[in-house]
Amino acid sequence: MKTYSDLNTPERILMGPGPSMVSSRVLRAMAHPLLGHLDPKFIELMKEVQELLRYTFQTQNEMTLPISGTGSAGMEATVANLLEPGDSILIVVNGYFGERLCDMAGRYGATVHRLNKDWGTAATPEEVDAALKANPAKVVAVVHAETSTGAMTPLEGMAEVVHKHGALLLVDCVTSLGGIPLKIDDWGIDIAYSGTQKCLSCPPGLSPVTVGPRAREAFHQRKTKVANWYLDLTMLEAYWGDDRTYHHTAPISMNFALREALRLVHEEGLEARQQRHRENAQLLWDGLEELDLRLIVPKEYRLPTLTTVAIPEGVNDMEIRKRLLDEYNIEISGGLGIFKGKAWRIGLMGHTSRRENVSLLLSALSRLLAR
Amino acid sequence: MKTYSDLNTPERILMGPGPSMVSSRVLRAMAHPLLGHLDPKFIELMKEVQELLRYTFQTQNEMTLPISGTGSAGMEATVANLLEPGDSILIVVNGYFGERLCDMAGRYGATVHRLNKDWGTAATPEEVDAALKANPAKVVAVVHAETSTGAMTPLEGMAEVVHKHGALLLVDCVTSLGGIPLKIDDWGIDIAYSGTQKCLSCPPGLSPVTVGPRAREAFHQRKTKVANWYLDLTMLEAYWGDDRTYHHTAPISMNFALREALRLVHEEGLEARQQRHRENAQLLWDGLEELDLRLIVPKEYRLPTLTTVAIPEGVNDMEIRKRLLDEYNIEISGGLGIFKGKAWRIGLMGHTSRRENVSLLLSALSRLLAR
Repeated sequence: MKTYSDLNTPERILMGPGPSMVSSRVLRAMAHPLLGHLDPKFIELMKEVQELLRYTFQTQNEMTLPISGTGSAGMEATVANLLEPGDSILIVVNGYFGERLCDMAGRYGATVHRLNKDWGTAATPEEVDAALKANPAKVVAVVHAETSTGAMTPLEGMAEVVHKHGALLLVDCVTSLGGIPLKIDDWGIDIAYSGTQKCLSCPPGLSPVTVGPRAREAFHQRKTKVANWYLDLTMLEAYWGDDRTYHHTAPISMNFALREALRLVHEEGLEARQQRHRENAQLLWDGLEELDLRLIVPKEYRLPTLTTVAIPEGVNDMEIRKRLLDEYNIEISGGLGIFKGKAWRIGLMGHTSRRENVSLLLSALSRLLAR
Repeated sequence: MKTYSDLNTPERILMGPGPSMVSSRVLRAMAHPLLGHLDPKFIELMKEVQELLRYTFQTQNEMTLPISGTGSAGMEATVANLLEPGDSILIVVNGYFGERLCDMAGRYGATVHRLNKDWGTAATPEEVDAALKANPAKVVAVVHAETSTGAMTPLEGMAEVVHKHGALLLVDCVTSLGGIPLKIDDWGIDIAYSGTQKCLSCPPGLSPVTVGPRAREAFHQRKTKVANWYLDLTMLEAYWGDDRTYHHTAPISMNFALREALRLVHEEGLEARQQRHRENAQLLWDGLEELDLRLIVPKEYRLPTLTTVAIPEGVNDMEIRKRLLDEYNIEISGGLGIFKGKAWRIGLMGHTSRRENVSLLLSALSRLLAR
């Protein structure tokens, strides 16, 4: 009979697009003995998680909760709850996750209009305005921080344009929440989702979602049941809200972890946290340019949380990444989609965004590239 | 500014319908530093999780993997991948989770035929045969262990009947996997799902699924895309299989936990584990009957993993459960659906199934009921 050894994993420095590194405080929180999912002590904890999520999203939205799946489940929850067969959605596609939104929206029977932008660039409110004039839509979806390209789409002024056309603004905040400024209420965002394993530095497995009054109204106006039971937000709200109506069994330990990760965000404060992300990103960018590496995204759109670097001619993508991992325990990531083999993706998210990590990576890259 | 205290949860004795108690070895596994989801060391671990799941399910099915959501996500994955609009499904409804299957199947556009049985009883292959003669179906769904009633549906002979009619057998093993005999291959089960937080004694958050050759063939024969992106098993297989095609970010820490929980199953051995569940259940049943409590399910269908007890006349359901929790740290559960206020549900699953827990519960109940 085969035997299985004790778990014995190397201690990686996670500088890819997520999961990011997790504080020992968060790891310890997961090791707490379990509570039942209807235990009054767990219900208190659920309320605290919701409060802390509202702070992190900068919102008063009552319907703010972690979906019991990864960021992609959050994406699908927003799409599935907003769209019925025959509805139209305008999706800004400037990277891999815009493409994924198109795939998902199609599965729910929606008519998908695309606003295509080059990878590494962003759409403006004016372009969205023009696209909506050409093709009216119920929902406009924008990826705030494209994890595949490292480009940030500025959201100020976006909701005004979308609302002028009577549409709802859906925003992917997977790689922005907790890392760069994001103001759900001030910016008029109607519905948004994120993941725990990026700038919140909690292990993957939950997806924070927030739903504003216009989007909730759209849920109530539906003519058909949400075509997805597990991600039906109205049922999830009854579970997370005061009713505590049984839906599924919440991932208890993951919620322990999320509470601790959000408590760290709250203790540091959003502004200090954003500044830390900016400063460490600047150190990284300066260092990469000193190594004669080209940053793909122009500075005005460049994400502090995820940097894409062009792989120089003659450098072997896989070999460098393998040596970083084997010799330095550093993980960075290759490109996705059209950036495959052409770019590296370096994440500085949450607990990974520390000066010592930047310094080590630059030192390691400098040695490995200097042949 | 509000402050949030250190996580400080009571140490509960979890004797409800799940989550069950989790071994300290499993809790420690979750506290390991994270790996990236494409790290070669994590990919090794994924393979081991799959091997251990095959052992636990007693199957050679290649497509055996944990879905990144709770048991309900596994349920929805099987339904969404098997059914297209217009397909028919026969669902044996003898409790709450049969009802849930009907709700889900309807959302995917299937025609749902119900084989209704009283709560606490089970359907026979002969009844399924008759139902299929009246209404042919592509899929027959049976709940092996109804968590809402404590009734077990014997599965020997079920697949023969289902296959005779050209249908596929879908089985809910949420409260059976790892606790009572379950032989996916020997019994001819085509597709099955479970949850981690029951007899596997891993925290909730993952849902093991196994898919046999007939069900895979049905996936390939689909005319439409699976109407659920996150739970598309063909895409999930490409991620878990040798291709490692990126789909979503697997919940890393939860997979650490699942590996350790399955390693415990493997070390104990399935037969010894089943015997432990039977012996401790017998102790519980004897003790409850000594307290003049009535067990709802007749012995031939009674689950060792979950026992339903009629709440005696004049006894206050909520008060007894609250006192068990507050005074003894013991969690048992109330009834679901038509059993609400009428039954208690007592789980003896996985790490909860220990003589000391049975003894303590009987002692506490004896004091609380003797007024």
